[in-house]
Amino acid sequence: MNVLGIDIGGTSIEYGVVNENSQLIYENDVLTSNYDNPRALIEYIYDDLSKKRLVESLEGIGIGAPNGNFFTGRIEYAPNLKWKGIVPLADYFKEKFDIPTLLTNDANAAALGEMLYGNARDLKDFVTITLGTGVGSGVVSDGKLVYGHDGFAGEYGHIRVIPDGRMCGCQRKGCLETYCSSTGVVRSIYEMSSVNKPFSVLSNIENPNAKDVFDLADENDLFALEIVDYTAQILGSALADFACFSSPKAYVLFGGIAQHKGDFAKKVKHYMEENLLVIYKDKIDIRISALHNSNAAVLGAAALAVHALKNL
Amino acid sequence: MNVLGIDIGGTSIEYGVVNENSQLIYENDVLTSNYDNPRALIEYIYDDLSKKRLVESLEGIGIGAPNGNFFTGRIEYAPNLKWKGIVPLADYFKEKFDIPTLLTNDANAAALGEMLYGNARDLKDFVTITLGTGVGSGVVSDGKLVYGHDGFAGEYGHIRVIPDGRMCGCQRKGCLETYCSSTGVVRSIYEMSSVNKPFSVLSNIENPNAKDVFDLADENDLFALEIVDYTAQILGSALADFACFSSPKAYVLFGGIAQHKGDFAKKVKHYMEENLLVIYKDKIDIRISALHNSNAAVLGAAALAVHALKNL
Repeated sequence: MNVLGIDIGGTSIEYGVVNENSQLIYENDVLTSNYDNPRALIEYIYDDLSKKRLVESLEGIGIGAPNGNFFTGRIEYAPNLKWKGIVPLADYFKEKFDIPTLLTNDANAAALGEMLYGNARDLKDFVTITLGTGVGSGVVSDGKLVYGHDGFAGEYGHIRVIPDGRMCGCQRKGCLETYCSSTGVVRSIYEMSSVNKPFSVLSNIENPNAKDVFDLADENDLFALEIVDYTAQILGSALADFACFSSPKAYVLFGGIAQHKGDFAKKVKHYMEENLLVIYKDKIDIRISALHNSNAAVLGAAALAVHALKNL
Repeated sequence: MNVLGIDIGGTSIEYGVVNENSQLIYENDVLTSNYDNPRALIEYIYDDLSKKRLVESLEGIGIGAPNGNFFTGRIEYAPNLKWKGIVPLADYFKEKFDIPTLLTNDANAAALGEMLYGNARDLKDFVTITLGTGVGSGVVSDGKLVYGHDGFAGEYGHIRVIPDGRMCGCQRKGCLETYCSSTGVVRSIYEMSSVNKPFSVLSNIENPNAKDVFDLADENDLFALEIVDYTAQILGSALADFACFSSPKAYVLFGGIAQHKGDFAKKVKHYMEENLLVIYKDKIDIRISALHNSNAAVLGAAALAVHALKNL
């Protein structure tokens, strides 16, 4: 039984075919910005898989997408996508491929991937935090994803951590993702920059990105270190508060920032511990996803389909 | 089958015997401050129920307590109780009564009571917010209480909503309960009082309490109205953020402040809607507990025991 797993991100869309031995036998990716219309994306993926003679082998499709709703199969008002309003993406895929299609939040898919193949295989209570273009989360409680009454549970990236803070794509202010996403890190450069930092290499890069910040922090660039520390402080403090929700055994950090070889996770842990309510202290791990960025989400999306097919 | 339900609050301890028809056949309460030692409380309850010839009829005990841990049966570091550190209360009751004893967070017990007998009988995804001496919460997701890996999930009262805000009993600053508990409302009086408010009746009451504030707001005392509005604003804004966790269909407000006949719940709903992420707007009810304050918690605690006995 082959299934197609698709991870829709603000920057890129990754997809892959997973066989019954949980092996990723084919994968590919495209730029999200190339597809103003979701149907054009579907045509592209269909044609690509047809050429690889994989379409016929598929028995189900799982999709992880920002603001993806498990119950309706729709993407609803995703602030980081060009597709505005409500997009019934699962239905579109079903029409084209004519096989069962499930959709969920991209971070929920990542959490499923982490639980089945990654660094949360030993856990029943954990939260995946995805640090990408935005910040997402997938909450697992007693071994099950928390979906909420409408399928929209687990939007930790839009919890406001700084009152009247940075403007967010969601039209509110101070959301976690305006500070701790890759785009948030870039905003920190501009916000924290000053003429007093002329000796920083970072200050002199044109159009720096989050990777530049983390790379330069590894080289002890003081301004870059300041930003990494600030990002870790806001994330750690937020994760301390979020423990009051589901009391997880671990947060599994996922995405470019988290996977960077430096000691970001260690800093996050430090600031989290400093801010935790006493009953949660020294209990919660900060883990880094063991899966390659794209694979975990694609495998997670595929796992969603496998799970659904088994229960048909 | 009779069970004993006990609700331990910062101010009073209520307990009652519930029969197999879910009827509360006996209830009583004592002041929490009278019992420096939990064993003295147990002796009192045992003697009281002995006199009423109810001890022999009991088959189980359920306890709701602040910082109560379902998995261990212990109260751990409850900031609003004189009992400091870790108190193995379920074990103490088991020793004396020699019957199965379960313990959980008082707000979790209230949520169970609400789901079985109250205003959440139609819901599988909701959160009970208890507004008492402190602020507690019980999170129900897909029909089940969220306990977390260690039994400590659902401490919404200790999420920090105002950075560097009011000092909390938990040694951190700005926790929701420092603003929206009955003691928080009293702190608001002192914080917001000024010589410019001489015509407020509230300004001239000696040692005012939260009930005074809400009573005077009903009489359109401007200062009292200002405090009620401020409390509703902080709570509504917090509940908007908390929706990002479990996406509940409703918050059920519980406790003296919530049950007050004025339009507090309506104000909370207004401020919540104003602050919600768009995907949650116009979906979440603010309900007021239909059960008498004490009864819901006692019935909820009893329900915990009934549920456990049925699964023995």
